[in-house]
Amino acid sequence: MGGDHGPDVVVAACARALRADPALKILLVGQPEALERPLRRAGLHQDLRCTLLPATEVVGMDEEPAKALRGKKDSSMRVALDCVADGRAAAAVSAGNTGALMATARFVLKMIPGIDRPAIMAAVPAERGQTQVLDLGANAECSPEQLLHFGQMGCAACRVLTGKARPTVGLLNIGSESIKGNTVVKQAADLFAASSLNFHGFVEGNDIYAGTVDVVVCDGFSGNVVLKASEGLARMLMADLKGAFQRGIYPRLAALLAAPVLIGLKRHLDPGRYNGASLVGLRGVVVKSHGSADAAAFANAIRIAALESADNLPQRIAEDLQQG
Amino acid sequence: MGGDHGPDVVVAACARALRADPALKILLVGQPEALERPLRRAGLHQDLRCTLLPATEVVGMDEEPAKALRGKKDSSMRVALDCVADGRAAAAVSAGNTGALMATARFVLKMIPGIDRPAIMAAVPAERGQTQVLDLGANAECSPEQLLHFGQMGCAACRVLTGKARPTVGLLNIGSESIKGNTVVKQAADLFAASSLNFHGFVEGNDIYAGTVDVVVCDGFSGNVVLKASEGLARMLMADLKGAFQRGIYPRLAALLAAPVLIGLKRHLDPGRYNGASLVGLRGVVVKSHGSADAAAFANAIRIAALESADNLPQRIAEDLQQG
Repeated sequence: MGGDHGPDVVVAACARALRADPALKILLVGQPEALERPLRRAGLHQDLRCTLLPATEVVGMDEEPAKALRGKKDSSMRVALDCVADGRAAAAVSAGNTGALMATARFVLKMIPGIDRPAIMAAVPAERGQTQVLDLGANAECSPEQLLHFGQMGCAACRVLTGKARPTVGLLNIGSESIKGNTVVKQAADLFAASSLNFHGFVEGNDIYAGTVDVVVCDGFSGNVVLKASEGLARMLMADLKGAFQRGIYPRLAALLAAPVLIGLKRHLDPGRYNGASLVGLRGVVVKSHGSADAAAFANAIRIAALESADNLPQRIAEDLQQG
Repeated sequence: MGGDHGPDVVVAACARALRADPALKILLVGQPEALERPLRRAGLHQDLRCTLLPATEVVGMDEEPAKALRGKKDSSMRVALDCVADGRAAAAVSAGNTGALMATARFVLKMIPGIDRPAIMAAVPAERGQTQVLDLGANAECSPEQLLHFGQMGCAACRVLTGKARPTVGLLNIGSESIKGNTVVKQAADLFAASSLNFHGFVEGNDIYAGTVDVVVCDGFSGNVVLKASEGLARMLMADLKGAFQRGIYPRLAALLAAPVLIGLKRHLDPGRYNGASLVGLRGVVVKSHGSADAAAFANAIRIAALESADNLPQRIAEDLQQG
């Protein structure tokens, strides 16, 4: 029921995802009165692969996570996670309140042994392929051990999502000049070097988009500011480009001819293409869609959830953590 | 003598800066044998406003800061900073090794009372105007008090550089959902609120490019990864755009028509337009140019140095710190 656009977008995304993946089944959790019309509109009201599961409550986007967890036991978010816990569903996807989703998922699904809190992981486009980055904001302060866990979880997820047998992982740090980062990353580097991971060493901010490594590990503070700054920069540039093409006759003509190029660029930039952040470290698959995601973007989050559950990502992570 | 391109670019930048600012005088510090030919080429060899000051040594881009400080007392960097210390120059500009520049500047010029280490500040383009961001990497770990000092220094610099009487300042933090940042930013927010600064409150990564506030304060770790990630993203997008315009006949034709638009966009993106990071907190004006800066970009760093020294930025900062 969550997200900025409400159930319409979610239902349209379900229709797309079902068309794209013939093996997919969806349990749509929410208020029946709000979902019936969108289901009819999307032609899903009689689709046997899409079942409506009623939930009477909705967690607000600004609601306190602890309050939502304690007070709303029949929220769409809670019921969806309950389904994952009792095996009725293989994964949960939500565009709702991130904090509430994390807190509820942690309570309902429990953590993989050795992991204290989930981390948020998402792919960003890179010059060469894409880069998985974590943590993107769940853990503002991290210990060196947590960063190592992020590396292990990220590499396990990268194997599942991209099929790479031995993904490379880098630790985000600042320029090698003057001071090489803070105490935590220095200590974490020793842990990474001693682990069985394919550790590339320190990477810098530009390496995220260069695609230097498959997985970039950072604390949730840096990860979140980098992600949001990138969104802001991309938005500014697209606005610039659009503005520039509207000034004068030649640029307008050029814009007509260049339309496919610009649409292509916009698609590459589009957070939707990379929409779907995995909450890793839980004993179940949970994917968070961006609140502003459209149907295509939300469908991508569903696709990621299906991939992660098909390969049982939580199980892969637990095995990797045991191996060290 | 520093930077990736050596003295040729620096000398060409001096010629540009002298043309743009009739009141400017330049002391060009470096090895005479390396500078003579570029000076002749730029038509500066007989210009009375550009004086060559010999220095026999050069600090390497990868040299240990402490080693450069102790071992190379006749490096171009050291001699330039000595000139600021003894009043022969009003400011120093360097494209050399950042760590060595910071360490040497701190030793030669000393810090403003109350400030322990310099912070690196630079402007980034924003949807509305530009945003001054600091620290960009000098201080990987910061105390709440240091962040407050960054705010005071950034606002003083913003007044000098943009003429705004009461710049707004925001503290970089992560999404308001779940956990609102780490202990340091929470404590810093209290200090900012109690100060005489025009404090806007917390801002997020996207606010840097939105131009929500005039000055964004963050620790040097976050600042550095945001800056470098932005550079990487911008580079990827320009490469994307160039590639897209080269596929097919219509896009090629469009590219011809759109050339001015694309050049304009490139210019807006160009780190050169914003080149020149101020090392604030020192008792003298020091501006660091990007190692890869071209002549136009380096000339911008000279322009910033001239602005900061004309208004005696170190003095403004010292006054603001006393006021609290």
